Amino acid sequence: MTGRVYGVGLGPGDPDLMSVKAHRLLKEARHVAFFRKAGRPGQARRLANGLVPEDAIEYPMEYPVTTEIPVSDPRYNEVLSGFYSECTVRLKELARGGEDVVVLCEGDPFFYGSFMHLYRRLADHVPTEVVPAITGMSAAWTATGQPITWGDDVLTVVMGTLPEDDLLRHMKGADAVVIMKIGRHMPKVMRALQTAGLFEAAWLVERASMPEQQVTRLVNADSDKVVPYFSIIVVHGQGRRP
Amino acid sequence: MTGRVYGVGLGPGDPDLMSVKAHRLLKEARHVAFFRKAGRPGQARRLANGLVPEDAIEYPMEYPVTTEIPVSDPRYNEVLSGFYSECTVRLKELARGGEDVVVLCEGDPFFYGSFMHLYRRLADHVPTEVVPAITGMSAAWTATGQPITWGDDVLTVVMGTLPEDDLLRHMKGADAVVIMKIGRHMPKVMRALQTAGLFEAAWLVERASMPEQQVTRLVNADSDKVVPYFSIIVVHGQGRRP
Repeated sequence: MTGRVYGVGLGPGDPDLMSVKAHRLLKEARHVAFFRKAGRPGQARRLANGLVPEDAIEYPMEYPVTTEIPVSDPRYNEVLSGFYSECTVRLKELARGGEDVVVLCEGDPFFYGSFMHLYRRLADHVPTEVVPAITGMSAAWTATGQPITWGDDVLTVVMGTLPEDDLLRHMKGADAVVIMKIGRHMPKVMRALQTAGLFEAAWLVERASMPEQQVTRLVNADSDKVVPYFSIIVVHGQGRRP
Repeated sequence: MTGRVYGVGLGPGDPDLMSVKAHRLLKEARHVAFFRKAGRPGQARRLANGLVPEDAIEYPMEYPVTTEIPVSDPRYNEVLSGFYSECTVRLKELARGGEDVVVLCEGDPFFYGSFMHLYRRLADHVPTEVVPAITGMSAAWTATGQPITWGDDVLTVVMGTLPEDDLLRHMKGADAVVIMKIGRHMPKVMRALQTAGLFEAAWLVERASMPEQQVTRLVNADSDKVVPYFSIIVVHGQGRRP
């Protein structure tokens, strides 16, 4: 009997927003794997606090590199590729030994998540299942108290890591915009929003759905402030509203 | 004591993918409101089957019009506006009488949902809370067994109702594309995908996460087939994958 690897989306942060399925898988888990920065408890693991049984066996997977090597350096891909392959070896062993493994994933696993790098190395070898989840951006637009899209609005999701010209082009082309992976890219993102004429309409949501959630109009935000990498900027669509 | 109106996202269809919070609100509901077409049980109500208590009081809100008046006709907005206002009167009365009301919403309420039309008429008058949910598109890309976005991919979400030129422009501008509200717009959507060079890469997902779920590559789909309005087309991004 081969076990199964579950990539379980934990949603935006509030455990109450976890799916019934994720909740059950966590509570029944015997083997739990999760990514984290070396020496940190890990955000995904933190979200599972109080749900994962105390006697579950835990497999922290520690990123060998975060910002030490720039993403554009070929070594970045090389180091990460080796890391993901190593993680996969262990997960395959467990599954082949008949054990189910729950991999804890922040947000929705197939939407800018790290689990996909394991998934593409696993899915052809052992039974692998993905449990979708509420995205961080859903929690963010809900937190603003305004719908993100109306009628036939076009929604575009862009990463703050993109060059300013690309950001601008995508912002201009859409009705509603979500910007993720902001962090130290904040000044560039703000310039692009200003040029696109969207700065006044933009909202900044930090730690959506968590107890420390903060929602501010971007015009009122401190541009020098270092915002958490997982902050999200939202520009609402203005489509048809009967 | 004023009651509260909850716009509760039920997610894509599988009750197991409902949030823990939605699940609890449904099971404790005393008043349940939902949209439906006249003479139909209603998809949102169907998703809540087995969860809403038998003695809950139900308020079906029946659309006065669906496709009888074209969206471009000013009467369409007028008729719908009157309808939403009427619904709101009733919900406000209940809340002011101290009753909580659960409004059942397919998908995520603030993402192309009908609840937003009630929300903007309610939120200034009675306590109103939105519970986000897993979107139909998350269930759709999960069903394809492939991540929708990698690395810095740009995701654009467009409605099949848009003119062909607009569809084409948005398809060309993005890395990953999700197309919703397809239905009778299928031939136009397929032409736009072909012109954009994305036809071969596109997947059609019908009734994502439901027992009748169907996943096909678009090249293998019957173009004359009438697909349900809630079918979703997915074109995956091809970004960085170490």
